[in-house]
Amino acid sequence: MRLIVIGGDAAGMSAASQARRRRGPDDLEILAFERGDYTSYSACGIPYWVGGLVDGPEALIARDPERFRQDRIEVRTGHEVTDIDLDRRTVTGRAGSRTFEEGFDQLVYAAGATPVRPPWAETPAGGVFGVQTLGDGAALRDWLAPGLSTAVVVGGGYIGVEMAEALVRRGLTVTLVEKAPQPMSTVDPDMGALVAEAVRGLGIDLRTGVTVSALETDGDRVRAVVTDAGTIPADVVVLGLGVRPNTALADAAGLPLGPTGGLVTDLRQQVTDGIWAAGDCTQVLHRVSGRPAHVPLGTHANKQGRVAGINIGGGYATFPGVVGTAITKICDLEVARTGLSSREADAAGYSYVTATIESTNRAGYFPGAVPMTVKVLAERGTGMLLGAQIVGRTEAAKRIDAFAVAVWNRMTVTEMTSLDLGYAPPFAPVWDPILIAARKVEQALGG
Amino acid sequence: MRLIVIGGDAAGMSAASQARRRRGPDDLEILAFERGDYTSYSACGIPYWVGGLVDGPEALIARDPERFRQDRIEVRTGHEVTDIDLDRRTVTGRAGSRTFEEGFDQLVYAAGATPVRPPWAETPAGGVFGVQTLGDGAALRDWLAPGLSTAVVVGGGYIGVEMAEALVRRGLTVTLVEKAPQPMSTVDPDMGALVAEAVRGLGIDLRTGVTVSALETDGDRVRAVVTDAGTIPADVVVLGLGVRPNTALADAAGLPLGPTGGLVTDLRQQVTDGIWAAGDCTQVLHRVSGRPAHVPLGTHANKQGRVAGINIGGGYATFPGVVGTAITKICDLEVARTGLSSREADAAGYSYVTATIESTNRAGYFPGAVPMTVKVLAERGTGMLLGAQIVGRTEAAKRIDAFAVAVWNRMTVTEMTSLDLGYAPPFAPVWDPILIAARKVEQALGG
Repeated sequence: MRLIVIGGDAAGMSAASQARRRRGPDDLEILAFERGDYTSYSACGIPYWVGGLVDGPEALIARDPERFRQDRIEVRTGHEVTDIDLDRRTVTGRAGSRTFEEGFDQLVYAAGATPVRPPWAETPAGGVFGVQTLGDGAALRDWLAPGLSTAVVVGGGYIGVEMAEALVRRGLTVTLVEKAPQPMSTVDPDMGALVAEAVRGLGIDLRTGVTVSALETDGDRVRAVVTDAGTIPADVVVLGLGVRPNTALADAAGLPLGPTGGLVTDLRQQVTDGIWAAGDCTQVLHRVSGRPAHVPLGTHANKQGRVAGINIGGGYATFPGVVGTAITKICDLEVARTGLSSREADAAGYSYVTATIESTNRAGYFPGAVPMTVKVLAERGTGMLLGAQIVGRTEAAKRIDAFAVAVWNRMTVTEMTSLDLGYAPPFAPVWDPILIAARKVEQALGG
Repeated sequence: MRLIVIGGDAAGMSAASQARRRRGPDDLEILAFERGDYTSYSACGIPYWVGGLVDGPEALIARDPERFRQDRIEVRTGHEVTDIDLDRRTVTGRAGSRTFEEGFDQLVYAAGATPVRPPWAETPAGGVFGVQTLGDGAALRDWLAPGLSTAVVVGGGYIGVEMAEALVRRGLTVTLVEKAPQPMSTVDPDMGALVAEAVRGLGIDLRTGVTVSALETDGDRVRAVVTDAGTIPADVVVLGLGVRPNTALADAAGLPLGPTGGLVTDLRQQVTDGIWAAGDCTQVLHRVSGRPAHVPLGTHANKQGRVAGINIGGGYATFPGVVGTAITKICDLEVARTGLSSREADAAGYSYVTATIESTNRAGYFPGAVPMTVKVLAERGTGMLLGAQIVGRTEAAKRIDAFAVAVWNRMTVTEMTSLDLGYAPPFAPVWDPILIAARKVEQALGG
């Protein structure tokens, strides 16, 4: 029996590892193809590597091909699969100038996602980078030679903001261009305004409501970004416009794509008999909207890959979906969200109320107490918690986990006012910010 | 209509405030008696005040009598209620040399708890302190004159450990005496061993398995603590032996006490018609053991008082119990627990498995990543999470909240392996410590 894995990052290699744990090499041969040079790495760490906060690329690699080989998992880097034949159960591809063809009994499709690259970003000139793979990070780092002075980051989501900060750390003059009125559109505009303030506090020239239309180059190198509000000099351009599921091969092979563009799997991560998919190339169930969503995060990729691998290995596991949790840090500002934002709740058709409260991370009298803003959404009628957002200066973001577990369990905000959360002066006010927020939204519901 | 409140701290004054919000002064007169000098204060802050980390006592007071008077809540400090007559609906008491008697329609009993003071601690000599009220804290601070050099803290629970650290900060040579083999018996012994290490790391002479039998005094002042393992010099002795519900008056009046010694209330905090109780003098439902428990924490007192006040005010609210969450900090070591410890799970009759894992607070490669130990208990058969304990160096304790919400919702550890918790390199490894722990205990269950 032979398992082929397409994609050597979190999802694919988690699947491989879990399958191997349950089935020995005599029972199951495992062969993984990765078109890049690296396996099982933390793409989320790239901004910190670029910014010089962490070393790379080695530090960002959880397991390299040699380590997989010790577990009898054969990984071939620099191997790009170009075709899947479901009838013949073969994949074909190329490695440099060579081509290859291999047969499989089971297949894990874990090709990840590709950065959105609008037509204006297509240029033969150097200096324009997406940030998706370790290879992208390495190329960007190589580009950042002394003498460069200006950078433009296009897109103010997580990656855009993190990359803008990284480039400031590298001494560049950074402009962040976002077409929406606020950066970080995954949180509500009032919370996004706090992010905007922090971004500007870093010395980043944040330009919102601005659309990029073209690049200026000198042929070899990018020189400027042209927008509907002027031209911005740029020795380097970073694209933070989001990613799309990388499903071209799967689509060509006839595998089903959902409305998000991601592959459709069952709860066990199976697409069709013996064909599995996991990670950024798939769509997931959003447990609050009840709809499919594309949420390209390493944490989901790892879990989905593990689930696929357990099932391939003969066990039983399911991936029951996500609740939309995400956190990030901009300088010392921590931003977190879970469930649905107002925009998402509207789109899902919920009627809801919101409440926003100001509290502190520690007892107000305790040294190091700093402000924290918490916003919550609750459904009218049921009082069910729909979502929460937190912005604070320290010890803030991971508090979203308590909300995430509450959302997962469909708690009402009334029940949440009774939650038994940890209290001690170095860690929280006696009324935890979560409890204060739950009380306030309960009031807003008329309870 | 007149409401009398016995006890002017968190529970009583929360009840008064909530009742006032719903019923104006023409509708409801509110009169509160506090035998001490302070109202609505953070007793949990006392160790930090004694240690000089925070100012006091003002900073620890949330609202003083003048502030309550502005809300038309009359608070009389220095007034000790000595008798409750349920038939005549009166309380009598003394204020200095005066006596008083007042009638009520509704009564909130919120007399708090009193420190356990064994017979050996009864002495006319000065220098022996419990730590329960702001008055206790003030008296201890007054005692700590220059020239004192040795302190003995008896009892290695939260207050004992926090006070030992505070006294070290004040420059004293501190011995912490605990009769159990480990300090912090609210966590399992293996986790308590980590606490013991941190306590010793502070330069505290920790003596476990040692029982105190007497004090030595020179008549005026304590001089030493006599134990079954020798005599320890002590210019000051702090008692950290826990507290008991202060129910003498309620008991004398015929109100029902439970097996924990605390007052028995219904879900709305009512004891009997028009008689309410809240805070450290009550017992609460432990939602995991299914049994009554005495859990004297300010966070519960505030919630119970709020619930009583809402109901007195004509609204509807319930206090559905606790799940045993508690957190503390010893120097830079953070300790947290929720649900049941192994000892408590045994006592409750559960059959369970445990798993302990080592992880980090941040991605392993991120600056500031430090170790964290997580232990979880899951019921055999159902796989339900019964409890969790965390010990770490930073960004550790408040992670217990996600476990607390999971325990509250009776989640299985299998479902927990799918939880959508916040991930970003500055905040967590890609497999959050909670997920790793859930996976490990699921394995231990044979899943």
